[in-house]
Amino acid sequence: MQYYWRVLPVTAMLNRLKHLIIGDPLPSQALAEKRLNKIRALATFSPDALSSIAYANQEIYLGLVVAGAAGLRLAWPIGLAITALLVIVAISYLQTIHAYPSGGDSYVVARDNLGKTAGLIAAAALLIDYLLTAAVSLTAGVEALASAYPVLWSHRITLALSILLVLTLANLRGLRESGSLMAIPVYLFLFTYLPLLAYGVFQLLVNGPSDLSAVAPAATRPITLILILHAFATGCTALTGVEAISNGVPAFKPPESKNAGQTMIVMAVLMALLFAGSIGLTQSLAVVAQPNETILSALAHTLLGDSFAYYAIQLSTLLILAVAANTSFAGFPRLAAILASDGYLPRQLTNLGDRLVYANGIVALSLATAVLIVVFHGDSHALVPLFAVGVFLAYTLSQIGMVVHWKRESNTGWRIKALINGFGGLITAITLTIVAYSKFLEGAWITVLLILAIVIGFEKIKRHYREVGAQLSLRGLPPSLRPYPPPRVVVPISGVHRGIVDAIDFARSISNRVTGLYIEIEPGSGERVRKEWELWFPDIPLEVRPSPYRSIIGPLLNFLDETDLKHNDGQLATVVLPEFIPAKWWHSLLHNQTSWLIKTVLLYRRRTLGFQRVIIDVPYHLRQ
Amino acid sequence: MQYYWRVLPVTAMLNRLKHLIIGDPLPSQALAEKRLNKIRALATFSPDALSSIAYANQEIYLGLVVAGAAGLRLAWPIGLAITALLVIVAISYLQTIHAYPSGGDSYVVARDNLGKTAGLIAAAALLIDYLLTAAVSLTAGVEALASAYPVLWSHRITLALSILLVLTLANLRGLRESGSLMAIPVYLFLFTYLPLLAYGVFQLLVNGPSDLSAVAPAATRPITLILILHAFATGCTALTGVEAISNGVPAFKPPESKNAGQTMIVMAVLMALLFAGSIGLTQSLAVVAQPNETILSALAHTLLGDSFAYYAIQLSTLLILAVAANTSFAGFPRLAAILASDGYLPRQLTNLGDRLVYANGIVALSLATAVLIVVFHGDSHALVPLFAVGVFLAYTLSQIGMVVHWKRESNTGWRIKALINGFGGLITAITLTIVAYSKFLEGAWITVLLILAIVIGFEKIKRHYREVGAQLSLRGLPPSLRPYPPPRVVVPISGVHRGIVDAIDFARSISNRVTGLYIEIEPGSGERVRKEWELWFPDIPLEVRPSPYRSIIGPLLNFLDETDLKHNDGQLATVVLPEFIPAKWWHSLLHNQTSWLIKTVLLYRRRTLGFQRVIIDVPYHLRQ
Repeated sequence: MQYYWRVLPVTAMLNRLKHLIIGDPLPSQALAEKRLNKIRALATFSPDALSSIAYANQEIYLGLVVAGAAGLRLAWPIGLAITALLVIVAISYLQTIHAYPSGGDSYVVARDNLGKTAGLIAAAALLIDYLLTAAVSLTAGVEALASAYPVLWSHRITLALSILLVLTLANLRGLRESGSLMAIPVYLFLFTYLPLLAYGVFQLLVNGPSDLSAVAPAATRPITLILILHAFATGCTALTGVEAISNGVPAFKPPESKNAGQTMIVMAVLMALLFAGSIGLTQSLAVVAQPNETILSALAHTLLGDSFAYYAIQLSTLLILAVAANTSFAGFPRLAAILASDGYLPRQLTNLGDRLVYANGIVALSLATAVLIVVFHGDSHALVPLFAVGVFLAYTLSQIGMVVHWKRESNTGWRIKALINGFGGLITAITLTIVAYSKFLEGAWITVLLILAIVIGFEKIKRHYREVGAQLSLRGLPPSLRPYPPPRVVVPISGVHRGIVDAIDFARSISNRVTGLYIEIEPGSGERVRKEWELWFPDIPLEVRPSPYRSIIGPLLNFLDETDLKHNDGQLATVVLPEFIPAKWWHSLLHNQTSWLIKTVLLYRRRTLGFQRVIIDVPYHLRQ
Repeated sequence: MQYYWRVLPVTAMLNRLKHLIIGDPLPSQALAEKRLNKIRALATFSPDALSSIAYANQEIYLGLVVAGAAGLRLAWPIGLAITALLVIVAISYLQTIHAYPSGGDSYVVARDNLGKTAGLIAAAALLIDYLLTAAVSLTAGVEALASAYPVLWSHRITLALSILLVLTLANLRGLRESGSLMAIPVYLFLFTYLPLLAYGVFQLLVNGPSDLSAVAPAATRPITLILILHAFATGCTALTGVEAISNGVPAFKPPESKNAGQTMIVMAVLMALLFAGSIGLTQSLAVVAQPNETILSALAHTLLGDSFAYYAIQLSTLLILAVAANTSFAGFPRLAAILASDGYLPRQLTNLGDRLVYANGIVALSLATAVLIVVFHGDSHALVPLFAVGVFLAYTLSQIGMVVHWKRESNTGWRIKALINGFGGLITAITLTIVAYSKFLEGAWITVLLILAIVIGFEKIKRHYREVGAQLSLRGLPPSLRPYPPPRVVVPISGVHRGIVDAIDFARSISNRVTGLYIEIEPGSGERVRKEWELWFPDIPLEVRPSPYRSIIGPLLNFLDETDLKHNDGQLATVVLPEFIPAKWWHSLLHNQTSWLIKTVLLYRRRTLGFQRVIIDVPYHLRQ
């Protein structure tokens, strides 16, 4: 199908490479999707949510350890507060699932209920969330692995970028997020972590709690309210991914909403168990992390020692985090395509590639993630402050949108439902304030500015498309009454040779007003060219123009302007360009790229409104 | 003059930047050159020759120090042998000056007397010499400076690249090698080094020689013949630049040959004084170098201590080496332009830029030098083995060429002249053998292979131009008897909108056989487009083609092939492309680049011989 590439030797090679890596193109009718049962759906939508304990625990630990043992003793209460928040958010989203069976992401909910601007803010926040989910999950995953194999610690950026590359290529091939391949890491994670936690509780019951004072490093800072809020705010990243199921309701087998709701409850319970369990055990068993080790790794290491099970746990952490990053590769391009088809992002993002994936969106996400990983040195702790703001902004807008939604419907019991979402929205708004306030200087400001910039960008792009649409409209265009006079034609030539004959023949075939134009770079060459010209094309006038500055373009444009002014016949002279095409690509290096330059300049040169200069390319293919 | 760039917003900015850095364009008549008197001529042509003591001494020292004091005692005899070689080569070139008053570089002499292949080999050797002169001079200059300021030693690559950048920009502006600016470092060098050497001789006479055994490091290798040949071979780099004056005879004031000859004698005497003087003093005063210090710096340091004079000497060494590197920026682009106008290198190298310099040659030299500096870690010692082969190959070919020259002329006394050049050629050939043999594995093989590759490249390029010339020849072309039938026209459209109206009007103005073509990416859109089309262009047929793989190009090419086959009228359908041009450059990002893709594919697609597809671009400029 794509044989047209064969004409370009370099691109032909690249194209073969592309087919090898990305695969053969797929026809459009292959797009139909399979519905998911609850087991597969859980594996599909939960990785982001479940894996967030990997970085949330780490953030709480890093936030509190600076205050020594007394600080670390606050982990459990903070963990319980976050778990409570999780329950509230989950209940709120349960309601969204039933209200938006066709999929209610924050963009849709906010746009439908709060208006366009709120929708765009939510969309911007979501795009950034997807991006940061990818970056934070990859870096946290690599940190989990490097905790087990310390020699990898200094190669974290390279490792994270390598996994990113694999994900990108897999997604460009059309990896389905619902595939069985994705389910393995999720259930591996559950079937290693849940037993680990059970074993920890058993240990705790047998041996009793340990004392943190004995092992915690000395406090370097006092316990202040801001320190507690800090730890709470970054710990709230444990809630990322809760909304995933409500975005994907249509992917469930019918009855969609019911199945999605049940899956949501299971997921929330698992999240609560994993989060509260791991943070509680860490504190009761008085676990502290070594340098270059995550606290979750330290917990597993304390319970399992240097056993095979410990390494399996760390590997399964890396795997589920990679799958979590992969959810961004499904969500980001899809949201970008929705925004693009609404006219808020470049239209290319709606192009379905050869493999029926939004390839442009995938590449854009991958590049942006790579930049984040490199700029933040592959350190998840540095990325988290950027993360939480977007998450809670999207949550809050979605909840408030739901309140308006219930009010509008005003069905039986709408007040209760509105109250539940309203309470959820209030709590997430408070959390948002805490996160933005306590993390502002550490990076939250970047997210705030970015969301603002993205929303402005959305509006600018939308306006551009609207203006283009208006300019392209045929409405009110009077029917052309001109009898389409044949064009005046100018043929710039580099000399009298075989390469210009076809161009002149073509010019003669479309017009009887043809002029040759020779720009004399080398003084004196004009006379010689004129003599040859008169020999071969005696019936066509030739203009010779000097070029004191050795430029072709300047004198050419001057001549065209002059001749247009002289004729003043309501059209611009058409330029017929003889262009010879070398037989091998490297031969192009041996010829001046004058034709290309002339075409580009003429094409982009803006003339009086209503006129345009037509450019005609007459190729002459060299045989050798 | 260059207002045409203003139409492209990005390039307009770049162009302003270019004018700021490179300067305004110069008219062609500014090319006339001023003739040089002997004082200026010495400054113009001698930097490369004089400054070569900086690396030649260093090479001899590094070659001998591994054999301890006994090794270093060989420096003086080796130095004398090289000085003798210098005298022989200088006398040989004196003859060339008189035989080739219009400038006799090795390329010209070898080509005229030994034939094309020998000329091309000499040319390749010369090109490589220019390149290595730039790389070796810059790195040796930076080493001289870093010897005085050891903190700079680890930044040698950056420093060398920075000086290279300055030289490149200055040359793109049109820095004249004959400018007064260039004369200052040369005379500064002479007026610091000659007194230094005199002071050293005075010290030596007062205090007597020192004993090397006390200070030389212990020998790690025995004195072998190969070690001596090694030191001699690399020390021969002292001779680089001897040929410069004979290349530049026409630049002298008349009588050119006489003035050039006298200048040549002065230069050779200065070279001999500097080289033999510095190497003799180094040995007599028992100077050895610290790590990260050049031997020339050690000599100056021994004589002057940490005085201001010492730092002035090191700075003047850097400056003359930078000027020496600059001579490559004059010579390389000029030789490349000569080769290009002979058809052996890409024609673009003959383009005189805005500032009347061969900008392409300057940029090519600069990039290649930068690559060498980076690949060889800014270490002149690593570069020298590559250097000497090219130098002596060019010398040898030139001398042999001169023998043939004298034989051909057979004037009175031609035998003596041929004997002198023959002896010179023999000696340089022997040196070439020694250099190639003793340095082969250290890098000389690179130069040998490179010269071979370049000569093959010359021939391939020449053949390409010859073939193109033959194909472009009008000789024997029968006058076209066809009555130039109007073309069949196909207008691919993306929809029915304002942007296609001009294209269709233009198509109608040149032909009455116009067909619209719509490729249906989104299934079902074809019917809607057809209805609108029939409303606006009822008299023109529209073809709608499906595209199961969502590609525009494939179905377009299929349609064109089909229609050409169907009509079989001795021409290919002409494609009229409606293309809308956004008002701002960033707007291009918001539109698919389909027109550009279609143009590229059609232009490079090779069809049956004798036919070609004409592509017509009808721009529609958006106002906003």
